[in-house]
Formats: sequence, C-alpha cells, structure tokens
Amino acid sequence: MPVHVLSYDTAHPGDTSDLLQNLARFDPLQIRRLALLVKTDGNSDLNDFSRSYGLQSAGLAIEQFGGGVLLERSTFLFSSGCEGAMTPFGQLFVDVADAEAPASHDSALVFGCARSRQLTGDEIGTLVHADLVTQTVQGAMADAGVTEADVSLVIVKTPVMSRVPATARQAVNKRITSAYSKAVAALGAGVALAEVERAQIKPETFDADPTLHARRAMVFSGNEVDYVEVLLLANRAGAAGDLYVQTGSMRDLLDASGLRRMFVAAGCRINADGEVEDGERVVATLVKAGATSDGRVRGRRTTIKSSHIDMDKHVRAAVSGVLGSVLGDTRAFISANTVHQAPPGGGLCACVVRRSATE
Amino acid sequence: MPVHVLSYDTAHPGDTSDLLQNLARFDPLQIRRLALLVKTDGNSDLNDFSRSYGLQSAGLAIEQFGGGVLLERSTFLFSSGCEGAMTPFGQLFVDVADAEAPASHDSALVFGCARSRQLTGDEIGTLVHADLVTQTVQGAMADAGVTEADVSLVIVKTPVMSRVPATARQAVNKRITSAYSKAVAALGAGVALAEVERAQIKPETFDADPTLHARRAMVFSGNEVDYVEVLLLANRAGAAGDLYVQTGSMRDLLDASGLRRMFVAAGCRINADGEVEDGERVVATLVKAGATSDGRVRGRRTTIKSSHIDMDKHVRAAVSGVLGSVLGDTRAFISANTVHQAPPGGGLCACVVRRSATE
Amino acid sequence: MPVHVLSYDTAHPGDTSDLLQNLARFDPLQIRRLALLVKTDGNSDLNDFSRSYGLQSAGLAIEQFGGGVLLERSTFLFSSGCEGAMTPFGQLFVDVADAEAPASHDSALVFGCARSRQLTGDEIGTLVHADLVTQTVQGAMADAGVTEADVSLVIVKTPVMSRVPATARQAVNKRITSAYSKAVAALGAGVALAEVERAQIKPETFDADPTLHARRAMVFSGNEVDYVEVLLLANRAGAAGDLYVQTGSMRDLLDASGLRRMFVAAGCRINADGEVEDGERVVATLVKAGATSDGRVRGRRTTIKSSHIDMDKHVRAAVSGVLGSVLGDTRAFISANTVHQAPPGGGLCACVVRRSATE
Amino acid sequence: MPVHVLSYDTAHPGDTSDLLQNLARFDPLQIRRLALLVKTDGNSDLNDFSRSYGLQSAGLAIEQFGGGVLLERSTFLFSSGCEGAMTPFGQLFVDVADAEAPASHDSALVFGCARSRQLTGDEIGTLVHADLVTQTVQGAMADAGVTEADVSLVIVKTPVMSRVPATARQAVNKRITSAYSKAVAALGAGVALAEVERAQIKPETFDADPTLHARRAMVFSGNEVDYVEVLLLANRAGAAGDLYVQTGSMRDLLDASGLRRMFVAAGCRINADGEVEDGERVVATLVKAGATSDGRVRGRRTTIKSSHIDMDKHVRAAVSGVLGSVLGDTRAFISANTVHQAPPGGGLCACVVRRSATE
Repeated sequence: MPVHVLSYDTAHPGDTSDLLQNLARFDPLQIRRLALLVKTDGNSDLNDFSRSYGLQSAGLAIEQFGGGVLLERSTFLFSSGCEGAMTPFGQLFVDVADAEAPASHDSALVFGCARSRQLTGDEIGTLVHADLVTQTVQGAMADAGVTEADVSLVIVKTPVMSRVPATARQAVNKRITSAYSKAVAALGAGVALAEVERAQIKPETFDADPTLHARRAMVFSGNEVDYVEVLLLANRAGAAGDLYVQTGSMRDLLDASGLRRMFVAAGCRINADGEVEDGERVVATLVKAGATSDGRVRGRRTTIKSSHIDMDKHVRAAVSGVLGSVLGDTRAFISANTVHQAPPGGGLCACVVRRSATE
Repeated sequence: MPVHVLSYDTAHPGDTSDLLQNLARFDPLQIRRLALLVKTDGNSDLNDFSRSYGLQSAGLAIEQFGGGVLLERSTFLFSSGCEGAMTPFGQLFVDVADAEAPASHDSALVFGCARSRQLTGDEIGTLVHADLVTQTVQGAMADAGVTEADVSLVIVKTPVMSRVPATARQAVNKRITSAYSKAVAALGAGVALAEVERAQIKPETFDADPTLHARRAMVFSGNEVDYVEVLLLANRAGAAGDLYVQTGSMRDLLDASGLRRMFVAAGCRINADGEVEDGERVVATLVKAGATSDGRVRGRRTTIKSSHIDMDKHVRAAVSGVLGSVLGDTRAFISANTVHQAPPGGGLCACVVRRSATE
Repeated sequence: MPVHVLSYDTAHPGDTSDLLQNLARFDPLQIRRLALLVKTDGNSDLNDFSRSYGLQSAGLAIEQFGGGVLLERSTFLFSSGCEGAMTPFGQLFVDVADAEAPASHDSALVFGCARSRQLTGDEIGTLVHADLVTQTVQGAMADAGVTEADVSLVIVKTPVMSRVPATARQAVNKRITSAYSKAVAALGAGVALAEVERAQIKPETFDADPTLHARRAMVFSGNEVDYVEVLLLANRAGAAGDLYVQTGSMRDLLDASGLRRMFVAAGCRINADGEVEDGERVVATLVKAGATSDGRVRGRRTTIKSSHIDMDKHVRAAVSGVLGSVLGDTRAFISANTVHQAPPGGGLCACVVRRSATE
Repeated sequence: MPVHVLSYDTAHPGDTSDLLQNLARFDPLQIRRLALLVKTDGNSDLNDFSRSYGLQSAGLAIEQFGGGVLLERSTFLFSSGCEGAMTPFGQLFVDVADAEAPASHDSALVFGCARSRQLTGDEIGTLVHADLVTQTVQGAMADAGVTEADVSLVIVKTPVMSRVPATARQAVNKRITSAYSKAVAALGAGVALAEVERAQIKPETFDADPTLHARRAMVFSGNEVDYVEVLLLANRAGAAGDLYVQTGSMRDLLDASGLRRMFVAAGCRINADGEVEDGERVVATLVKAGATSDGRVRGRRTTIKSSHIDMDKHVRAAVSGVLGSVLGDTRAFISANTVHQAPPGGGLCACVVRRSATE
C-alpha cells in the first residue's frame, strides 16, 4: 500500500481544478484511503467561510472523481490563514492498494484516518471531548496499522462552539471553551500517544499548566465541523513506498535552527546559506508555532498580543518568513496556537521526504 | 564628532522614559545633532495616530532634556507597523562635539539631517516634490560633510495627501498620488545620489518602470508631516568613532542570504546555524522589502495582495521572521513598499556595526 | 403568472434549509422563473468567499428541488456586507405559471431576468461592458414583458477584475477599473432605461460627472461572476397577483423621510412614532446609499472615508439603523456605493408591498 | 455659576484649534471648572492611541490657555469610535464664576467632576474598584453641590488592564476583568446613585445578572488612565443659566421613539417627519446602546456578534443612523456596551438643551 503525498494549488478556496488533475493519476477503485490537508485563504475570523466553501467544493470534486464510495474513504482537514509568504494550497494523501509495490528497506510513511461521532455543544471542552479525541486517535492508529510508538504526527480537527451563545455569561465561558477545545483535543491526543496521563486532564489544567502538553499533535479548530477528525502520519516497518515522515521542534517562532535540524534528521542537506539544498525531496512541511503568554519574543516586546491583528496571524506570517527562508518554498502548512501542543512560545514541526533523490 | 547610535524601548508610542534615560548619558550642550528613527505600534491605516502621538511625545521629551535649542537640532522619522516578531522601538542617533575623540583609522559613521520647506497639497507627487527631495538630500549630505559617493543610506520621510480629498475624481487621483509620493521621493533621492537621471523622472514612469530605482534610499510617507525630512548615513574618512554603516540588498522577502551577506560585509561572523554570532556589535538594522506586482513569492501565489490585510503588513511580518532568525534580535527597523527603491519584489538593507568587539 | 416574493433566513452563507422549506410551497414544474437576491455575512473584502459559497450552496439546493431544468431558469444575485442592524437573508422571487390566477385590477409586480455572455478581463470597465449591460437590461425587460416605462428597479450584478493583476501599473488601473465597473454598469443600465444617453458614456465621465446617473438601477459587483446578470422589477398592467413595487430616493444616508415617503407612496401608513404601521404588508425593501466624496454628512466630518473600515461598511451600518427604525424590521437588502446610480451622497430605495392587508 | 456647554470640531485627535477658539470666549481666571468629553477617531482596538494623543494634546492646549492652574481644574473623558454617520468632536463644559448671573426660574444644569487615586492592576475589577467608583461619584456630587436625587447622568471613565498580562491564564482572566471593569464601575456608580445595593455587587453577578444595572450611568474604559474619573450632570434648583439636562432610555438600538421621547421631555418639538424641529436648542446629546447577548435585533439574527468587526462598532454605527435621522446632527456622543448600565440590548440617552429658543 504505497502512500503518495502530492501538493496542489488553488486559485481560491473553491478551486479544485489542480486537485482533480492530481487525482487523475490514480484509479479511484484502487484508492484505499484519501486525505486532504488544506490551507484556505479566508480572513480567519468569525465570518470566514473559506473552510466551509473549500470543504464543500472538495467533496463535490472527489465525488465527481470517485463517487460516494471514494468520498466515504476520504478525510478532510481545512485550516484558514495564509498570512505573509504562505501559499494557499492543498496536500493530498493517497493510499493506493498496489500488490506489486515492493516493501521498503526499513520503514515507510503510512497514514490513518478516523472520525468521531458528532459532539453536542455541551460536550465541547469537556472530558467527554478529550476522551473522544483519544479514541479517534486510537482509531486512526488502527487504520494505519501502527502502534503509538510508530506515530510521528497526529493532526486533529476539533469543533468549536457555534457562533452565537445564548447569554453574555455564556459568551465569556464559550471564549474559554473555545481555547479549551484545542487544549482538550491536544491533551486527549496526548493520552492516545502515551505522552499525557488521563488523570492529568482536569478543567483547571486546561490552558493553565504550560508543562503539560502533547509532543506529536497539531490541533486545529473550526466551526465547520461538529465532530473530531484525525489524520495520523507514521513510519511503519516494512511498508511499501519511498516516503518518510520526520518530526522536530522549534524553541520559539524565530528558531530556524530547529527547522534545519528536522530537515537534517530527515536526510536533507543544508547548504552554506543555511538553506535546504535538496528541497525537491521534501513533499510536505508542517509547522505549528505559538506565542509566549506575554507576546514577547527573545525577551522583547512585540505587538503579537496587543494589536488589532489576531496573534495567530502575526505568528503565521513571521513563521512563513522563517520557514520560507530555510526551505525556499512557500507551500507549507503553517499554523499557530500551540496550546498544550508545545511549551509556551515553542513549536512543533514535521516534514515528509522522499528517501531517494528522484521519484 | 563621534556618532552614537542607541536603541530605546517604548511601552507605547507616547512612552519616552527609556529615551530620556538614554539621553541622560549626554550633555545637551555638546550635542551637535540628534535624530530619532522610530517604529510605533499603530494600525498603519488612515486612523493610525501613533506616529503623530510619538512625534509630539518625543518632541516634549527632547525639549524637556535640552530645551528648544536642542529641539531645533533634532530630526524625527516615525514609521508605524510592527507586525510579526518586531519590537516597537526607537533608534537614537547622537552626534556629539568631542574635541578629544580620536579620528578613526579609516572611515567612520557620520549622519546628516535636513528638512525641506512645507509642500502644498498640489505639489505632492509632482516634479516640484521630486526636486525638493533632491535638494533636501543634498542638504543632508552637506550637513554630514560628505559627498554622494560616501553615502550608504538615505532615509526620507515624505508627506502624503490629507485624508479627505474634495471629490471622488480627486479621490482616485490622490490614491495614485499617494503611491506617487513615495515613488517621486525615491527618484528625487536617486538624483541626489547620482543613481537616477533627472530627465528620467516623468509622471508616466512613476510606479511604472521597474528598472528605474534608487539604490540607497528608503522612503517613508505619512500624513503627520507636510515637508520632506531626510536622515542620511555615511562613512566618512577620518571621522571619529567606532561605528560603520553597511548597505546590502535582498533578492526577495525570503532572502536571508542577502541579509547574511550584508552582515558579513560589515565584519560580522555567521555561525553554523546561519545566525549572526557577534550580534552585540550590531547597533542598528534597517530593512525595506517589497512584494512583486502579482504578490507571488518564489513563483507561487500568496495572499499578500489579495486579503483584508494590507500587503505591507504581510511583508513586514514575514521579513521580521527572516531577519529575526538571522540576527536573533527583534529590534530592527523593518518596513515595506519599495517602489523605485529596489527592483520589484526585492529589498534594501543596511546595518550599523561597531568595529571593535566591545564598546 | 402571479409573482411570489418571500424572505428566508440563513444561519450562515451555505445554509439553504429555510430556502428549501420556502421552495416546498411550489411545484417546480410550474415555476416559470426563479430569482434569489441574497445578503451574505462575509467580510466584504478581497478574501470574502461568502458570496461564492452561498452561490454554490443555493445552486445545489435548487438543483435538488427542481433539477437542472429549474436551475437554468434561476437567477442569483449575491451581495455581502450585513453590518449594523442588518440580517443576512435571502429574498426569493418566484414566477408561477397559474392559468387560474385572476388579473390584477390595475398593475401588479412582475420580474424579468437576463444574463450576458462572459466578459474578458480586458472588456471590464469599457464601453463594450456598458453596452452588454444595456442589452442585458433589455433582455430582462423582454423576459418580464414590459417596456422601459414600466420598470421600477433594475438590479445589476457586474464582474470586477480578478484579484491579482499582472503589474503594479495595472494594479492602479484595475482599482480604477473596479470603480469603473459599477459606474459603467450603472450607465449602461441607464441607457436601457432611457435615463442616460449613450453618447454620454465616455471613459472621462466614469466616476467623474456627478450629475450623470441612472435613476432606477442598483449595481453590485463581485469577483464570483464573469458575466452581467440582471433582475428587473416592474409593475405591469393586468398582471396577476397582489404585489406592487415602489421606488423612492434618499437625500442622504440619514434621510428617514425619504424612506417614509416611499412607504407612503406604496400605500403604507406611518404612525405617530414615524414607523411603518402595517409593516407586515412590506415583503421586500431595498436601499442603496452612498457617501459624499469628502465623507461629510450634513456638512460635518465623519470617518466614513478616513478609517480602517471601508466606507461602504460605515454606510451600510448607519443606514441599517435609519431603515430599521422606520420599518421595524432588520431583513432589508441594504447596500452601499451609488456611483452613477444616485447623486453623490444620495440614495435609491424600493419596496415591494402587498396591496391587500392580508395575503 | 452659569454652565456653558459648547461643541468643537477636530480635524484629527491632536487638533485643538477649534477648542482654543471656543476657550477664547472665557477668562481663564473666572473658570471654576472645565470638562472635556471627546470622541476621537481611532480604531477602538488595542493599538488605538487616539485617546492618549487627544488627551495629551488637550492638556497642552488648556495649559497654554490657562496655565497649570486651569489644568488642575479640568477633567478629561476621551472615548474612541466614530463609526457610521458620527462626527469626531469634543463637548466642552465650562463652569464660570459669574456673580451677576441671575438664578434660573427653577433648576438649571450644573456639573461636577472628581478623580480617584490610582488603581493597581490587581484592584481593577474588584470590589475595591467598585467602592472607589462609588466614592468618586459622591465626590462629583459634592463638587456639583447636588444630592443623588438631582443627578441626571454620571459619566465614568474607568481603567482597563495593561495590554500584556503575565501569563496565558491571566490573559483569560484579564479579558473577563476587562468586561468586569465596566461592570464594576457601573455598579459602583449605581450604589452612589441609590440604584444598586452595595450587597448586590458580587463577583458572580458581574456581567451575569441582567436585571442588575444602574440607570443614570454611562461607563467608558481605556488603558490611557489608571484612575477613575467622573463627570456628573445634574439640574440644581436655583442654579444660574439656561441649560437643562434630560435623561431617557432606548428599548433597543433601533428605538428612535425612545430618543424622540427624551427630546420631547426636554421641551423640544418633533415635526411630521419625526425629526427634532428645534435642534438648535440641543447643545449636547449622549447615547449609550448595547447589543443583546445573542446579537439579535427585533428577534432576528445580525452579524453584530459574529463578524470580524467588534460588536461595539456595529452598534455605534447603527445608532448613529437612528439618532442622526431624528436629530439631524452628527455631533453626538454615541457609544456602545451597556453592561450593567441598561437592560441587555437596551440603551441610555441624555441631552442638554437650552430652555429659551435663542441664547
């Protein structure tokens, strides 16, 4: 079951022409599982409908290509916010049933997907939510045929509250709950990965204890879903294919060295200018970076938390510069807010690379 | 006349406490000339009053420190927009009359300042405006005691139109004129620096001919001034002091290598991680970067020119990441829009460094 | 052929549940023509995809209800921007073939629709564009079976340029062209309505001559269409049905009296508090209001043209208060920018009312 | 001691030319007390420095006019946000010592001012804060020489937290505290006015119990102050002068009738168009309006609480239309957020009118 990872461009969130062109390489009947990880160019605010629009458009395209049968085997994770030097694009993961594909020398990339049942508004941000994330991650591990030790990265989409809460008091709580939603999902994923103990997940630790965090989870939220959806990347011994996933970490949002270490660990070369030399082998890069609680970077004041622009936008734009200058490519899945996914101000990164120089 | 270049922090645009502390090192009567180059944290939009507020506050502080006499010898250039990993701060340039200061081995940093007469609204964006910039740059060269060949960087503040034009038709023109204002100022500065021929400055080339640009000018605009103001940095043979200014260029906004080349040319060391190793010797860094006309970076679509966020904010934030990851410091004067100051999509950079390892 | 005009709510731009419930009242085979006029709640900026998302969703809903046959008979005009006290909603126009419907005593509401061929980017903002609008309005008159004298209101959707122009110079032109697009469409509609002479449409009058404007046209633009689309409302003698359309005008954006005059002319009563007393008879209200060229209202400075918020948002929000306080309802189709559709600072309004007190 | 209430225009927040012209009518030595109530045109966001800039500029102007002695007798309340059809302007209150001024027939406008000590960050949003507001309102009553029953309106400026809290957990709390700050101030003012019982002020009721609210208090917050400042308006029996203050209420933000009732109660005439006929007698109008907890208006969804634009901006802009269409003037002090100052969704309004038709 060799896995293919492709990038496709979008002229706007509803554009699926390049997606369809990439899909045309495959026989829909041979696709065991398909996943889309997409950055859309909406305003990342309450009235951003780019994710919903992209989701609906991608669903229509996949159905057109492979019918309802393929649609059922597909997983979608849309995230908006492409500030700075970032390209809105999609990352297409295809797992093809290919009996003739040779097993890899050692281990190779596999991915797994799972979706939870729908959550009610009251469940979001509670321990029920955390447990559902844990179970969904476990489901994705089963789907990928891996154990927790094989996992490199878990990408979790988690619902946030509907837009209009019933009372002002609730409004305050829901804001907290909105932050809680990601925190809870991160901790629930951490339990599935044996990085966080179930007993540590208590309402009073959500968004409060900076030492408590998962190490291989990136969590996204959005009001376009009311369920938990997981895309899990792992290297599995004996899997077919030439791809490999490598995880790394960033000390802060300026930590280009952390990114370089990840690429080196993945087998890439860094040239004298500090850039990845064999960038054509990198088929996917994902970064999640955050701000410190006071918005300071390297000890100095910034406007990350004190401007009319949401802090996540400052972070994504700055990191697009850092990563872009290292990788030389603007098609990277960069997102912000690392609550319970990294130490405060730090970040998590991952890349998928081709072992051989040419495909 | 050794020149001192200091950085000071601000808690907000009206905060001058750290400026006053830095000024306290000097005897106001010995200050030949003083210049402030300040990044304020306003929203960089039509209702951004952070520059005006900072200007008024700094004027009050300087007057408090050195009276109206010192205020008359002072030059102020305020620019707003500190997106991403950028610290709002001020760069204080002080030229002290010190008979005992030894002449430098070779050349050392000097600066010169000049201000034009007030422009009328009708003059802004015209050849009159361009010629006034040329003359003001020449005045700053005379003030610094240098010729055009010595100049490393000319920082020009130029007025834009008042906020409410009289008619819809004018509104359209004034928007053009607003772009023209910077273009005109850049070309006017280019004439003074012998980089642009006076005959090339024609209305039809403003913002239209990408090959026509100054090479050592950074231009800022703002509705808080109705005159042209210039701060000029040069290395002058035999000047006293230990500081040196170095100019460089960036190919595009991700060009960390261009920044490293500038630091190396200024005598700094780059470590294995691609970072400036002796950053404590760097006393000032200035970058002006721009976007290509279609907003693409390395050939790929971005949202720089197609989002609710102004393109300059995307550029500043991304560059704050690129420079911050190279320099390891967030106190840098980063700005955007390089119309007629660099090739489209490219940038201009400069740094002031201390020759000796310790002050 | 009695015409039905219904309002439906949306929980978000992709929500068609209430639309489908309203459609369920009709037999799709009996529908001669269907039109949707929808306000979506996007950010009204370059990265607002709410119109595209709403358009895609409504198309899917109509197809689900009446198949491709009904979809071909349907016209869609989406406009975003629901600032202030405005409800995002849709106005559904249905023209039902009903042989038994009695002819009205005098005249009754009819509507007509038409769509132009696709425009190329080069054509937008040119005389070709204006002529296409004229022809499309004429097509809509034919569709409604009316002559120019019967027409009460022409609603025109017109394309604007794609988001990323090729060069900086073009960027400037395209901004002009974007304003031109509406201006051109308004003047082209004015020709069809015998309000503007074809010879008056010259590039130099676009957005320049405030005395030149249509009197019964509301123009909307959006990058989700590359054709001109027209929905035309008229009262036709002998038409079946109980509905009537009335046009009015506003002197400026605070002109509640202008709105009251329109409602009175349409047969409504105004109570002692200045409110429409029989608002249940009003089935649709449309307002298009603009700002003066200097942004002043009643002679005083406002921030309509000098803030970080686009002028159209200021106008829509303020007018939502004026109309809402008169009509007592927040479901009204309020939009801004009246270039060549009204005198500068003035506005155009219309309402559809039921002649009898109960349906 | 006749009180004068004048309006002055500003070209920008730092413009005091019209203020100085208005002040020139008075002898500074005769001024017992001076107050400025100013709307500035900043972006009303974390990086809005228009209030600070206006405050600094006004202080410099008053000092220039009347020296430090007059400055000490002056009170400043700056509020930003002039969305919609609102004019940025200042309302100047001057209490002149004039032995010859005849006592009024019945009662006439007086005002009183008071300022608290500085609050620490830890005190903001606590009962200490509430009690300080109570005491400051009592101080303003004493200053005006009135008892609680005479008071028509108390305008309270209250500090909010500094911009960068120390930890993420605090960030959440501080957001609550920021809402609490106004809530606490409103309730503290309510105690001084005998509208709220001291025992009812408990952390759990802040922003939670909608039935608990003051009836004559408008509260403003801003990070430009670290103390509580109060301007109190009252009608005092036997006071000199021709001015009178009248308070009213709005049922919701579209309630033009509530505004008309207030003007009628103040002795104004409403014409057949529902407009104030003798608007020249109205020297000041103040409105504070709020949104319901779910953002609905007249039962229908709006985007007030679900867009990229802060809800207060939606409210201010819509109310500027409602009031402007009734009063025919755009110089009104309109603000939003009525937490504990009115029932949810309702508003408080007040006007100062001249009893005689001509001054």
